[in-house]
Amino acid sequence: MCTAISYKNKDVYFGRNLDLERGYGESVVITPRQYIFQMRRAKSMASHYAMIGMATVVDEFPLYYEATNEKGLSMAGLNFPGNAVYYEYDDKKDNITPFEFIPWILGQCTSVSEAKQLIRKINLVNINFSEQLPLSPLHWMISDKQCSIVVESLKNGIEVYDNPFEVLTNNPTFDYHKINMSNYMGLNVGPANTQFREELPLYNYSLGMGALGLPGDFSSSSRFVKAFFVKENSVSKDEEESSVNQFFHILNSVAMPKGCVWTKNGFEYTRYSSCCNADKGIYYYTTYNNLEIKSVNMHCIELDQSCLYTYEVMGLDS
Amino acid sequence: MCTAISYKNKDVYFGRNLDLERGYGESVVITPRQYIFQMRRAKSMASHYAMIGMATVVDEFPLYYEATNEKGLSMAGLNFPGNAVYYEYDDKKDNITPFEFIPWILGQCTSVSEAKQLIRKINLVNINFSEQLPLSPLHWMISDKQCSIVVESLKNGIEVYDNPFEVLTNNPTFDYHKINMSNYMGLNVGPANTQFREELPLYNYSLGMGALGLPGDFSSSSRFVKAFFVKENSVSKDEEESSVNQFFHILNSVAMPKGCVWTKNGFEYTRYSSCCNADKGIYYYTTYNNLEIKSVNMHCIELDQSCLYTYEVMGLDS
Amino acid sequence: MCTAISYKNKDVYFGRNLDLERGYGESVVITPRQYIFQMRRAKSMASHYAMIGMATVVDEFPLYYEATNEKGLSMAGLNFPGNAVYYEYDDKKDNITPFEFIPWILGQCTSVSEAKQLIRKINLVNINFSEQLPLSPLHWMISDKQCSIVVESLKNGIEVYDNPFEVLTNNPTFDYHKINMSNYMGLNVGPANTQFREELPLYNYSLGMGALGLPGDFSSSSRFVKAFFVKENSVSKDEEESSVNQFFHILNSVAMPKGCVWTKNGFEYTRYSSCCNADKGIYYYTTYNNLEIKSVNMHCIELDQSCLYTYEVMGLDS
Amino acid sequence: MCTAISYKNKDVYFGRNLDLERGYGESVVITPRQYIFQMRRAKSMASHYAMIGMATVVDEFPLYYEATNEKGLSMAGLNFPGNAVYYEYDDKKDNITPFEFIPWILGQCTSVSEAKQLIRKINLVNINFSEQLPLSPLHWMISDKQCSIVVESLKNGIEVYDNPFEVLTNNPTFDYHKINMSNYMGLNVGPANTQFREELPLYNYSLGMGALGLPGDFSSSSRFVKAFFVKENSVSKDEEESSVNQFFHILNSVAMPKGCVWTKNGFEYTRYSSCCNADKGIYYYTTYNNLEIKSVNMHCIELDQSCLYTYEVMGLDS
Repeated sequence: MCTAISYKNKDVYFGRNLDLERGYGESVVITPRQYIFQMRRAKSMASHYAMIGMATVVDEFPLYYEATNEKGLSMAGLNFPGNAVYYEYDDKKDNITPFEFIPWILGQCTSVSEAKQLIRKINLVNINFSEQLPLSPLHWMISDKQCSIVVESLKNGIEVYDNPFEVLTNNPTFDYHKINMSNYMGLNVGPANTQFREELPLYNYSLGMGALGLPGDFSSSSRFVKAFFVKENSVSKDEEESSVNQFFHILNSVAMPKGCVWTKNGFEYTRYSSCCNADKGIYYYTTYNNLEIKSVNMHCIELDQSCLYTYEVMGLDS
Repeated sequence: MCTAISYKNKDVYFGRNLDLERGYGESVVITPRQYIFQMRRAKSMASHYAMIGMATVVDEFPLYYEATNEKGLSMAGLNFPGNAVYYEYDDKKDNITPFEFIPWILGQCTSVSEAKQLIRKINLVNINFSEQLPLSPLHWMISDKQCSIVVESLKNGIEVYDNPFEVLTNNPTFDYHKINMSNYMGLNVGPANTQFREELPLYNYSLGMGALGLPGDFSSSSRFVKAFFVKENSVSKDEEESSVNQFFHILNSVAMPKGCVWTKNGFEYTRYSSCCNADKGIYYYTTYNNLEIKSVNMHCIELDQSCLYTYEVMGLDS
Repeated sequence: MCTAISYKNKDVYFGRNLDLERGYGESVVITPRQYIFQMRRAKSMASHYAMIGMATVVDEFPLYYEATNEKGLSMAGLNFPGNAVYYEYDDKKDNITPFEFIPWILGQCTSVSEAKQLIRKINLVNINFSEQLPLSPLHWMISDKQCSIVVESLKNGIEVYDNPFEVLTNNPTFDYHKINMSNYMGLNVGPANTQFREELPLYNYSLGMGALGLPGDFSSSSRFVKAFFVKENSVSKDEEESSVNQFFHILNSVAMPKGCVWTKNGFEYTRYSSCCNADKGIYYYTTYNNLEIKSVNMHCIELDQSCLYTYEVMGLDS
Repeated sequence: MCTAISYKNKDVYFGRNLDLERGYGESVVITPRQYIFQMRRAKSMASHYAMIGMATVVDEFPLYYEATNEKGLSMAGLNFPGNAVYYEYDDKKDNITPFEFIPWILGQCTSVSEAKQLIRKINLVNINFSEQLPLSPLHWMISDKQCSIVVESLKNGIEVYDNPFEVLTNNPTFDYHKINMSNYMGLNVGPANTQFREELPLYNYSLGMGALGLPGDFSSSSRFVKAFFVKENSVSKDEEESSVNQFFHILNSVAMPKGCVWTKNGFEYTRYSSCCNADKGIYYYTTYNNLEIKSVNMHCIELDQSCLYTYEVMGLDS
């Protein structure tokens, strides 16, 4: 499971926790403008916006978990089992596989509004990357400097939701999370204000009691609520270092420590956390085993190129 | 407010989050064996166990927030406003000021059991460090490699509680936290098991639903519950790096991001997090502004000395 | 707001709490078979199944809150503000006003399955009963002896959901309640089973701790969860008196005492609670001011008639 | 387990739910002034205030569950397993058995303040009523027209607490409930007020959302919170019928339907609910099987008598 957020301070930051029980050889990957995206059922993209993000590279193809392009548009895929439905080939649509979806959008769009245009024509087609790499059930958050949307391919087709919370986790569908947030609208960062007679011995025995009821478990609905509460109330100086640092504090508040979430395949934990300055194209990350913030700047390399740039991620379990 | 924990893996680790709205010039401080602790109402300690921890040094006196001695005994003071009561001088007791309490215990004891002996004779006497530095209302957790206790100086005298949870936060008194934990005894790291008829459409839409109900706000009672849940379920390799890393993940899960806890004096946040390997005397820490783990090893210096060793803490706000 | 349930013991019982801040002259009303339902945009029903339930009679028309017909089919309308959408006249559909919906279904159907057939052809047309009596935003639960469905007329048309919980309250839409119930799937009527080490001092200090987390506020989502928990776990003898009695205990557990739910128009409270033995056509009720169970048996009167039978409800505030 | 409350409207009302899995032959019992209370270790009371309440009469002795005396002082015993400690005979104290405690106080006191005087001298002595009737572990609420106290005989002796909530349930000790109530101080009967930016789509989808977080399970800590919330917010006309009716609505909101609380000995449920007008000496009750309110007026009989008056309770399971 995962948590993605878009956070505005002076610049705009986009990132996520990737929560899994094992790794898939993740690298920080910069796709330059002339890298040729060979598409399965659409024509290849030979020239497009450059992008940076975390990906597993297989057969020279960057399978992005999330990425940001040089125009400041960002997109992340998050696990969505049981709800994601992919479709047969449809000759009236742009047939894009789920693993091509991030490059397709980030390669061509500069904004959420442009992304919406493309999505209207898309059919997310059910073609596995390979026999060994079947499709993951995903939904996506796409954010620019103004706003965010969520894209879900459901049994009745693609749904695009405006996402004013600018947070995404996993199941249930986004419309559930949207309603569920209203259950927490009264939570605040100050003390609780008594609603009873003054003479009753009710008091704030601790700081922070105005937020009693904020969930702290690791389910996707609870992470959604907590990540939003922390992000929305965040206070940080404008400087890059403070902003990036605050972003990781937000992600830490909903991270999964090893041992807390058991699956049949082992314990799920936050393998990495990322934070991309969408204005500057700098990708920051930490890993479970290395809490120091590392960074890669897409503008430090030649973007008019055709070969992927991959950077080893420090501190990842294999 | 704060959260202290003792965590056993191959070695034993003791540490805490220090949550405050401002700083007091904290340093990592090693007090060597011959440093003379001048006591206000007890005879000075001229020879004692060496200790390492975080302290504000004023007039050459180390005001420890928490520390570990060379025998592996650790002790932390945590905010306890409204409940802590300090007393007038009592000539039948050892009159120790609250700010001398950590040195007094760690200077003389090798274990919780020895600490209990000393505490029986102690009167926590209400003498301010100085006019500018009045006493803080505190309670304490003391941990050795086997177990932990909590010490509270209340209106009816000193209470010493066994603390099998090996977690401490702030108000209310420890006996409240102890009972309150029973409200969460059914939470687990796996899926929720339905208690209803199988044919009903109830399902684990997310991982982690066995822990629904775990609180995520920043009140002291909620941090107690969550810190214990995460620590108790923690899974980590035995190696030092994995263990220390896991310790900080536990602390991160109950840390206070800036903006989430408002006080009249500003936002309270986790200024630093610490983790001391109590077996090896290595003190690790991170700060709000610098998430990289730094360390100081007390055995790398000469302990048969009389002058404090102080180490600047990187990344602290002033 | 309201809570409706269908409860199976030896017989099947259907009923509800009606929660409002004021009254509308409710009576128990039996509509016999030859009463002529004059429909606004459909042909009148001159011969139909007889039905019994609570209604406000205006201009000789029974505006049913809920009713049960002689075949054991039951239907209740519940407040659904903000979500209910009624439509313009559609000449390809059966145009039924919301206030005609209960008679239309109960007059013609013997089962949920038959009701589903009719609903497929229905357009809920936005015609007020009168200028003084505008339409209420409602959704409906329909139950027979086997199962229940929920009918919602939403902005995208009519949705019919199978409702295996056989409970309905108010907003949000039913699909929210359905997912939300999964958050409570682990609650049970026994003790909590500790998930931690046995030696920790965690214990069931009270009976009933296996259900900690069951909500007790009066919001529609919380009443849904609690009503289902209580109904599903209910234990009762088969006899009529025990069954009816148990039914009212279930409704009491989610009833609104005066003062607990404030609205701009006064306090909302449970004006009446009803329980109809759907097999026998006996309608039981209690009112806020009179907790004694009263009853009216539809088979004690002549059903081959054309005039409404109305019975004053004892204990109703005006 | 049980719930006792004292509720002030024009008159003062005291009562409780008795939650048990079986019955003990309860009757409404009036003890007139000259009935001789034979005490086990204190001198007998041959003349005392008359009292009315629910009791099991064994060997002509009224074992009161709760009662009110002719001066308007009321007292109820509630289950307190694991915490109640009764003591050996102490010749410096008034040695009163737990089953004599209600008569001892109500026979001699006109107010809580007088009761406190007597309690200071009491030792609750561990003498069983008989071999077949061992002592129940109990704590007590005592209420007059102004205020309430709680009496607990604990391992460190008798504790008397002021109880401004005027509610009592069961474990843990009263000081836990007192602190725990502060966790709910922000709950109110109106809508939730959003603490986030106005433009976010957060809204009160239902009435009653200001009380989200109010617990609805049947544990003693949750019943304490809910009973207080409902009682404190109750709105009722001054008249006797409205007041009594409202009292039962409060008790219904924390009553135990059959099937919801499982014990090794069967399901615990609310066998009876009582409400005594403490000013007028009228005892009202309902039973699980008979929700109609019945009453017995102590002033309708001759109180200068020596024989118990017992009234069969309608609707009780054996």
